[in-house]
Amino acid sequence: MAPTRWGFVSAGKISNDFKVALDTLPKEEHQVVAVAARNLESAQNFAETHNIPTAYGSYAELAAQKDIDVVYIGAIHTQHAPVTTMMLQAGKPVLCEKPMSVNSREARQMIGLAKENNIFFMEAVWSRFFPVYKKIREIIESGAVGEVKAVTACFGGNISHIPRVKERSMAGGSLLDLGIYVIQFATMVFGGEEPEDITTSGHLSDGGVDEIVTVVLKYSGNRMATLLCCMSAVVANEAYVCGTKASLKIPNFWCPTEVISPDGTHEFPLPPPEKPLNFKNSTGMRYEAMEVRRCLQEGLIESPLMTHAMSLQIAGIMDQARKVVGVVYDQDKE
Amino acid sequence: MAPTRWGFVSAGKISNDFKVALDTLPKEEHQVVAVAARNLESAQNFAETHNIPTAYGSYAELAAQKDIDVVYIGAIHTQHAPVTTMMLQAGKPVLCEKPMSVNSREARQMIGLAKENNIFFMEAVWSRFFPVYKKIREIIESGAVGEVKAVTACFGGNISHIPRVKERSMAGGSLLDLGIYVIQFATMVFGGEEPEDITTSGHLSDGGVDEIVTVVLKYSGNRMATLLCCMSAVVANEAYVCGTKASLKIPNFWCPTEVISPDGTHEFPLPPPEKPLNFKNSTGMRYEAMEVRRCLQEGLIESPLMTHAMSLQIAGIMDQARKVVGVVYDQDKE
Repeated sequence: MAPTRWGFVSAGKISNDFKVALDTLPKEEHQVVAVAARNLESAQNFAETHNIPTAYGSYAELAAQKDIDVVYIGAIHTQHAPVTTMMLQAGKPVLCEKPMSVNSREARQMIGLAKENNIFFMEAVWSRFFPVYKKIREIIESGAVGEVKAVTACFGGNISHIPRVKERSMAGGSLLDLGIYVIQFATMVFGGEEPEDITTSGHLSDGGVDEIVTVVLKYSGNRMATLLCCMSAVVANEAYVCGTKASLKIPNFWCPTEVISPDGTHEFPLPPPEKPLNFKNSTGMRYEAMEVRRCLQEGLIESPLMTHAMSLQIAGIMDQARKVVGVVYDQDKE
Repeated sequence: MAPTRWGFVSAGKISNDFKVALDTLPKEEHQVVAVAARNLESAQNFAETHNIPTAYGSYAELAAQKDIDVVYIGAIHTQHAPVTTMMLQAGKPVLCEKPMSVNSREARQMIGLAKENNIFFMEAVWSRFFPVYKKIREIIESGAVGEVKAVTACFGGNISHIPRVKERSMAGGSLLDLGIYVIQFATMVFGGEEPEDITTSGHLSDGGVDEIVTVVLKYSGNRMATLLCCMSAVVANEAYVCGTKASLKIPNFWCPTEVISPDGTHEFPLPPPEKPLNFKNSTGMRYEAMEVRRCLQEGLIESPLMTHAMSLQIAGIMDQARKVVGVVYDQDKE
């Protein structure tokens, strides 16, 4: 089978890590053929560092290149919708970093466009593709924890000084950056079931973004998820799946290498990176890349592990939670 | 100094453990001189097991005994208010098991009576007196975790089959039994500050009690506590104090023997019990017993570590949370 030829949008930190993750996979399967940044020099430096043949100073040039199988969008949040739209309109399949959009309205438009044109499109919720997630689902299905009654997860750190996190104009805040991880974890465990009720409590930062937020999702059958995200304090960064008989603990649940279950710890180590990473366990993005290749080969326009409906559900929960905290982005006004 | 002479109300499981805890302290300081149960035989068996001179088949007889310095009330929740009232009216200082009452109305009446008669009265929130709690306060004050922004805590297990937990008529539910521990932890860390807002989400059991509840307390300065209690699933049973620089982890926060801090683990082991215990780390009730003796010797009517105001604050939070979940006890209707 031919290699999957990737085009990269943005030469930033996450693009670096995704390239390093791709390099842990066979070269006959994944190649990066071009990188585009808003600044040509950045793109050229990235291309040189990562041995990529072509560099562009605009995303439009990448959209026009013919021999690209899929575009990876690693730009900042506010660029996700416009750049995804540009690529889908150019007929390019897209893997867009999470959050795929700033709000549900954008998400619906992007998904509508992909469906209309029958083009593969996926939100890069990389967590979902880690082997640990498969193991979690297997353990739950085995009945080893009994009936799942609760999910708890928290994610955060003191990153409130970072412009893209603190600035409202850059769609900053804890929900879009961190909350998406705890929310996607809960919706995964509860199989995409629609919550009966969403309860939010949180604080607005001086900059008008959500600094710390608790989202509680109530599900049928007396089940619930209690989720916390925070951009101003160090929290535990772990998730639990709590059953009537026992619980599963998932340290680093957004990029996990182990699940601690009643019968012991199941470990799924990551391959070491060949170049420095910016984020924790980033070589784990290899699993979502493998899924993208599989979907493209099978002619799917969405992954069954991270469907469009799942993205819309998560975006809807974030919209509702943000509204309670009082965060309004310019995109919400359109 | 003379020994503190205790009278016990109830010969149940918690009374057993409190007696075993008292036995870890010097006999010259703590003695149990009488035990009363609603059933004389139970009291006699308890007295025999624990080498207590007097046994009564009614609480009123204990209230009438002269040489008692303080009454420990280990009866079930619904008995706390009426029996505390009886003892205070008989002029006896009281240590009443938590929750001291089924609701705030009862709590206010009990506290009013104690204040009016100038008699010592304390809710047995034993957690507050563990050496770990003092260490937590010291570490926070040292600035080692930076500014405290969040508290997280969860407490629970699948105990939904136990009558006193599942029955509405026995003031069952997760808040009164388990939630009080996570709430008192948060209010301790935030120094008794009144929350700006209380948000609750939870599920009502078939029996009309709160099966699983999340309570979020919002405090000034963008701080909050996210608290979970659950009577139908196994949860992590740990608490975190989350600061801008680092966090403290407190396993078994309701009866802790260690706090894990940025500079390592601080351990405070408990003395081993001489008789079997029913509950985890119960010899730790020794610390609240020591505090009761200190308060009595100093002529205090409340402990500065667990004041009447603190009890009222916790009862108020539980009232409000229970109301949202839809739990109504008969006592709420009076």
